Amino acid sequence: MKLTDPTQTLAALIRCPSVTPAEGGALTTLASMLSELGFTNDRVTFSDTDTPDVENLYSRLGNSGPHLMFAGHTDVVPVGDEGAWTRDPFGADVVNGEMYGRGAVDMKGGIACFVSALARVIERSGAPKGSVSLLITGDEEGPSINGTEKLLAYQKAKGETWDAAVVGEPTNPDQMGDMIKIGRRGSLSGTLRVDGVQGHVAYPHLADNPLRGMVKLVEPLLDPPLDVGNERFPPSNLEVTSIDTGNTATNVIPARATARFNIRFNDQWTAESLAEELRARLERASRDLGMRPGREPVRYSVEFDARSSPSFLTRDDALIEALSVAVKQATGRIPALSTTGGTSDARFIKNYCPVVEFGLVGKTMHMVDERVALSDLESLTLVYETFIEGWFERQSASAGTR
Amino acid sequence: MKLTDPTQTLAALIRCPSVTPAEGGALTTLASMLSELGFTNDRVTFSDTDTPDVENLYSRLGNSGPHLMFAGHTDVVPVGDEGAWTRDPFGADVVNGEMYGRGAVDMKGGIACFVSALARVIERSGAPKGSVSLLITGDEEGPSINGTEKLLAYQKAKGETWDAAVVGEPTNPDQMGDMIKIGRRGSLSGTLRVDGVQGHVAYPHLADNPLRGMVKLVEPLLDPPLDVGNERFPPSNLEVTSIDTGNTATNVIPARATARFNIRFNDQWTAESLAEELRARLERASRDLGMRPGREPVRYSVEFDARSSPSFLTRDDALIEALSVAVKQATGRIPALSTTGGTSDARFIKNYCPVVEFGLVGKTMHMVDERVALSDLESLTLVYETFIEGWFERQSASAGTR
Repeated sequence: MKLTDPTQTLAALIRCPSVTPAEGGALTTLASMLSELGFTNDRVTFSDTDTPDVENLYSRLGNSGPHLMFAGHTDVVPVGDEGAWTRDPFGADVVNGEMYGRGAVDMKGGIACFVSALARVIERSGAPKGSVSLLITGDEEGPSINGTEKLLAYQKAKGETWDAAVVGEPTNPDQMGDMIKIGRRGSLSGTLRVDGVQGHVAYPHLADNPLRGMVKLVEPLLDPPLDVGNERFPPSNLEVTSIDTGNTATNVIPARATARFNIRFNDQWTAESLAEELRARLERASRDLGMRPGREPVRYSVEFDARSSPSFLTRDDALIEALSVAVKQATGRIPALSTTGGTSDARFIKNYCPVVEFGLVGKTMHMVDERVALSDLESLTLVYETFIEGWFERQSASAGTR
Repeated sequence: MKLTDPTQTLAALIRCPSVTPAEGGALTTLASMLSELGFTNDRVTFSDTDTPDVENLYSRLGNSGPHLMFAGHTDVVPVGDEGAWTRDPFGADVVNGEMYGRGAVDMKGGIACFVSALARVIERSGAPKGSVSLLITGDEEGPSINGTEKLLAYQKAKGETWDAAVVGEPTNPDQMGDMIKIGRRGSLSGTLRVDGVQGHVAYPHLADNPLRGMVKLVEPLLDPPLDVGNERFPPSNLEVTSIDTGNTATNVIPARATARFNIRFNDQWTAESLAEELRARLERASRDLGMRPGREPVRYSVEFDARSSPSFLTRDDALIEALSVAVKQATGRIPALSTTGGTSDARFIKNYCPVVEFGLVGKTMHMVDERVALSDLESLTLVYETFIEGWFERQSASAGTR
């Protein structure tokens, strides 16, 4: 296989059916490519009582600083409606200049391009002066419990340190060069429960309908807006993802109603300050309800999930500039520096070193007929190539001026 | 068996396990009691494509007018948690002056008391001058499709006509003599569906959360109140009995939310005028929402169940007076003339003749250890006795004055 050709490296990865949490041969294939480039591979499996075991790969080239990390995942989301696919989801068929396959853009494509970029750099001028490592998990599309978070802690314990990291997730909404991610909003989920008294609809005075309280308590969660955002972040946003009563009898007033909600919040909040704000809003609203003549205070409880992720913003200008310049040179476009979208494993990496994200175009990710334009693969490989060389140059330059 | 003793007639009925829709021997037992009193029995079974066959009994004494109907049901609700019963639900055990059994108050007790009342009247002064019939169904606690409604139409087609009817359902909240029902509120159920666009919570601008619209559209259903009631009826009342989305993923905005609601309405409304009012409220609310800057009108649909029941009020003063006087004489208490509570088979009977309702104390109906005080059985038998004699006297008197 020609490692400098991203269509070959990607095809090899797509043909491994690594539907999360299965390894599917993807890490093995990647590891062999990397050893061919001189990397040392460390395969690590993490397990947990109530989640499946997951295989991960940490692979390093070089043993001195500066140290650049590339992070990503080889696991992919399920195929979905296989009958709707026009090509084999694990076939890597190329049609009209596009390669089809689950993971083509999310994110085997990003990994393939980074491997090919490394191969070109090494072929042209040998290994970078410092170290490059790939931190690859098989648990990004799954519960994300036995993946990046544990692998970072494990390698750190073994003495690994990093100066900067790039995540290869698809970051471009429409075309290559659109967007670099330099931070992410945080995420917090919660449950609102309203308790009433079950009874017959013909005797409402003997019952207490929890849905009256529920519709009143959901409002202060939605309105007023949490904030209007700032120059670094879009506004924080709360979505009520479900309200359920599970009552099938139309002549019965239910005993309880439950709502679930999720907030994506910017750097004006922490999970704690947000929970505090929402608790206060609910408390005010329930008191106002209780104050209406003949109304009892609503009996409600709100709980926030223990597992939340904070927002973060990368402030390493040299890193951001190295990537921006590479994108500009390779695509001719000046990328937006964004913090939009969902969470990614960058939320774990940012605790160890500055992290930025740039990859392919996300349009077809998670969809039937996920595919990538071969021209995009070439373009991203060029971006990574330029970025790797640019970042190491900047490092030695700044070292020289120290 | 001594038919004049309601404890004996009730015990015989309770010992028939007639859990709806099973006949359980109850109609056969009742029919034999009635033939002993000279009644002619007509057993009729009705069937329907998607409901079980149900047996019913129409039994008449006499062949001239005036014609008084007693209506009720021998089917009972399921035992529920049998282990929680302190006595056999079908044993008719008497403990501390109370007889235990499913149906003791709802409403084998009412039937037993009416049979014993008839036996006493006949024993004392022979058959009433006119006709008495019992219209008894085995489908009141079930879907109520193969019961009273069909039996009335069937007997009417055979030439039967009635001048007045009394339903023996438990009408007293606390003690004998509390309450006569002279009408009922109507009932209408409906479904409100709000459609949105499913999406990822991190990209709300690409989705449309139906729950935002749902909480806004439920409000105009609940507020302002439909009416304040009047001297004949309590206020109409709407209860939202469920809101469901069935979305288990906390990072997904659901595609749809569904609410079910039921209205118990008084004589200021018909099912049609009520549906019209609610449609108008929803239309206004959705338009107001749509008018907010940047807001699309909520995509919702509302459907009302085809099967609704209208409210009704009995205006036969002679009938109401005959029953009130009987209650006053037998219990020493002046009963409230009420239209509260749920629907009953009276909603079908009122289309054929004036109807009132009086029976036992409802406290333990549908509950574990359903039971009736023997003193209440005696009291109700006395009420029916006095009512039967009083009603026929009033009829002949008014006939005489015609």
